[in-house]
Amino acid sequence: MDAALAELRRRLAEIADLRRAEKILTWDLAVWMPASGSEARAAQLAALETVIHERFVDDRVGELLDELEPYGASLPADSDDARLLQVTRRDWEKTRRVPRELVAALAKNGAEAYEAWVKAREASDFAAFRPWLERGLELRLRYAECFAPYDDPYDVLLDDYEPGMRAADVRAIFEVLEPELVSLVAEHASDERDDFMRGPFAVDAQHALSLEIIERFGFAPHDYRLDRTVHPFMTYSGLKDIRITTRYDENDINSLFTAMHECGHGLYQYGVAPEYDRTPLETAPAETDFSMALHESQSRLWENVVGRSLPFWRWFYPRVQQTFPSVLGNVPVEAFHRAVNRVRRTLIRVDADETTYGLHVILRFELEQELLSGRLAVPDLPVAWNTRVFELLGLDVPDDASGVLQDVHWSDASFGYFPTYQLGNVLSVQIWEKAKEAIPNVEEQMERGDFSALHSWLRENLYSLGRKFTPAETIERVAGGPIDPGPYVQYLRDKQGMLAAA
Amino acid sequence: MDAALAELRRRLAEIADLRRAEKILTWDLAVWMPASGSEARAAQLAALETVIHERFVDDRVGELLDELEPYGASLPADSDDARLLQVTRRDWEKTRRVPRELVAALAKNGAEAYEAWVKAREASDFAAFRPWLERGLELRLRYAECFAPYDDPYDVLLDDYEPGMRAADVRAIFEVLEPELVSLVAEHASDERDDFMRGPFAVDAQHALSLEIIERFGFAPHDYRLDRTVHPFMTYSGLKDIRITTRYDENDINSLFTAMHECGHGLYQYGVAPEYDRTPLETAPAETDFSMALHESQSRLWENVVGRSLPFWRWFYPRVQQTFPSVLGNVPVEAFHRAVNRVRRTLIRVDADETTYGLHVILRFELEQELLSGRLAVPDLPVAWNTRVFELLGLDVPDDASGVLQDVHWSDASFGYFPTYQLGNVLSVQIWEKAKEAIPNVEEQMERGDFSALHSWLRENLYSLGRKFTPAETIERVAGGPIDPGPYVQYLRDKQGMLAAA
Repeated sequence: MDAALAELRRRLAEIADLRRAEKILTWDLAVWMPASGSEARAAQLAALETVIHERFVDDRVGELLDELEPYGASLPADSDDARLLQVTRRDWEKTRRVPRELVAALAKNGAEAYEAWVKAREASDFAAFRPWLERGLELRLRYAECFAPYDDPYDVLLDDYEPGMRAADVRAIFEVLEPELVSLVAEHASDERDDFMRGPFAVDAQHALSLEIIERFGFAPHDYRLDRTVHPFMTYSGLKDIRITTRYDENDINSLFTAMHECGHGLYQYGVAPEYDRTPLETAPAETDFSMALHESQSRLWENVVGRSLPFWRWFYPRVQQTFPSVLGNVPVEAFHRAVNRVRRTLIRVDADETTYGLHVILRFELEQELLSGRLAVPDLPVAWNTRVFELLGLDVPDDASGVLQDVHWSDASFGYFPTYQLGNVLSVQIWEKAKEAIPNVEEQMERGDFSALHSWLRENLYSLGRKFTPAETIERVAGGPIDPGPYVQYLRDKQGMLAAA
Repeated sequence: MDAALAELRRRLAEIADLRRAEKILTWDLAVWMPASGSEARAAQLAALETVIHERFVDDRVGELLDELEPYGASLPADSDDARLLQVTRRDWEKTRRVPRELVAALAKNGAEAYEAWVKAREASDFAAFRPWLERGLELRLRYAECFAPYDDPYDVLLDDYEPGMRAADVRAIFEVLEPELVSLVAEHASDERDDFMRGPFAVDAQHALSLEIIERFGFAPHDYRLDRTVHPFMTYSGLKDIRITTRYDENDINSLFTAMHECGHGLYQYGVAPEYDRTPLETAPAETDFSMALHESQSRLWENVVGRSLPFWRWFYPRVQQTFPSVLGNVPVEAFHRAVNRVRRTLIRVDADETTYGLHVILRFELEQELLSGRLAVPDLPVAWNTRVFELLGLDVPDDASGVLQDVHWSDASFGYFPTYQLGNVLSVQIWEKAKEAIPNVEEQMERGDFSALHSWLRENLYSLGRKFTPAETIERVAGGPIDPGPYVQYLRDKQGMLAAA
């Protein structure tokens, strides 16, 4: 039994190592790679993916899992080994269900569709993207078939991002949220402009401020990097080698929030228990990812719940003023805090504030379900999009580029991903409430720039768990119950109420 | 036959892709990796190395080579396919000869010995390094045994860096060189100091100048990167994704020569014929490397033959003066040219000038042969080193750190590597002479900052060949004959004679 476990662990560690190699190649691609390197890099990533896939779906892994079945059953249900075996079996079985040709067809269509999407968005021409979306949808439905029988194909796709969750669960949450968000937007949306938010903010200074925040939030200097890219993301080479990326714009101080967002993702990965290093419990599953909602809850907690709070800015604003005296010298902290919390009706999801953001997600979730169920045909998508934007946000969509073509996700047919963004927002506040219960003076600490108790609490109660428990179990442990939109709505009401009263 | 060739090519392309992935991980390690990432990175590199090794030594590769034997024999001897099959067979057979355990033992001892060497050098204490060197030597002799019978174990080791060359060939060349270099040093060595060589030279400005040179030498901006590291090197992710590294010191303008040196290596890789992309002919062999001497000839050609020439500085010196007016504003180009060509007796190889450099290499080559043949015991090495330094350079070695412990190479028992450095110097001048014959006004072009004809000639006559021909054949093609120290000695005599006469 010991020998079987050792062999399984050795195989899984090798797969984890190769996955990390893949992550660094992807990071390099996005951060440093010369433009001419893309073809060679694509071949490298494909080669690694093939090796990883072959090694993971190997019959021998299944034999080892079978052999270790009685051992797993003999352990306490919450023991690391029992969970390791469960998680590995789940990944192995899911991966074996999908024929390699289908995976390749999805990847190929995704790559071509991405190019088509870039061009279609530039030309604001949905028709040019339509054939790829149709093909992607067809392939994704074939993918869902691999997991038949199912109640709803959406359940299958959601399971890749949010294991165990069903479309009906999401629907129940979004049905509560939608009217609340619509009414909050109606009450608080404004068109006011804060000229001081346009800078100029020297890029090097933004970088230095970002590093300062990240290290105060909890990173030791030798355990991470912060680099520039076009579409910021977080990845890692090891639990003590976290790669955060960001972007800067001289006329926008939003990079500080981007840094906090990616830092939140990074702190999650950084906090995984060392025992799970190089195993599927390190939050680096073989083919799918672990609870995007939980991951997003942490980027949002640090970016929004902490990073857009008055206590945070009472600590950090003087540093920012000092750095940009000609822009912010005469702007009081309250005005800055208000500026970074304005509710605005916008067409673009990634520019949306905390309140309107959820409406953008609800729209996408609904349309994805309609597409997958066949109730909506691809050619009718733009009209459906524009109609729903008007209903939810009261805005006219002037063109496809600022409408149905704005997001990259559908180019590789990643249906089921969008809802996790909003579930993350919802969860971020639930978790924050629990942290506040445990650390009653957390806001005082934040005003002093001390985030250590908060970081420790999150590490102990969430980050260290890695992928050991299911998302539902993890959420239960850290938030004391299932996903509940109540606290999030209350948080928005309180914040906007306070800003309106001030 | 077509199917077998296609399968072989597919397998080799995958191995090339995985090798490139390994290269980028190594590059990242040396350039960007946070200090805490080293353990995870070592595991990733080991995992990749295992996969690459397994895939390459696979019996199937041998079967395909056997199956393709008649096809190869039916082709003209110089055809790409015939050569591909030959090179692949050579690599495959060499790799299969060495037991995996021995490779692992060498790697393990190398890693430990490296740590020991770093500490021993800091403490200038050879005794602390001695056990690792003894173990490395023993393992390396076992490695040589894998290729028995042989005349000289040194031949076996040299073959990994300079395929087909024998220790006796090197000896014959070095026996001509030694007295010539000793007499040149006696005639021209000086202790004069040029204060202007100590700067200060702002690091950002050195970087900008380096980029300017590299792009003028022949790199298109989107096809390479130049980054900082501790020990500069060149690597690549694709034929159009070349990674050059360098280092800067505010009190030393040597970075320009480092940039030209690594640029030379880079241009070689950059110029390999696209047909050899992702094959063993792309100069990325499976386990060993292709003619380090040829590779070094190109770093030296660009660094020294071009980069320390008066025509080059007639073009570039005004740019450097403009950049550092307070340091160089009053220094004429001739004085600068003299400063970068001074002959000095130094203890440290990497600081040596063109003339003394060869003596450092000859010393190491002799001692390596004595160690491997058993004529010299490891404990007696420091005394042998110091004695020979006095004979060759007339210097007393004050401590092991500036003597026998100065180089990293023996920590992983890389005996046989050192001679290639000097063979590269020798070759650089032979090749330069041929280029000059073909482009009679090349020096005029250089004075105008135009290196395009030189770069094209080198690409056509050397770089594009990749690893298609053996080193001896390649040298014959590009230099018109075997390695010959004559032109190198004449080049040094001419240069130093000119400087002495001026």
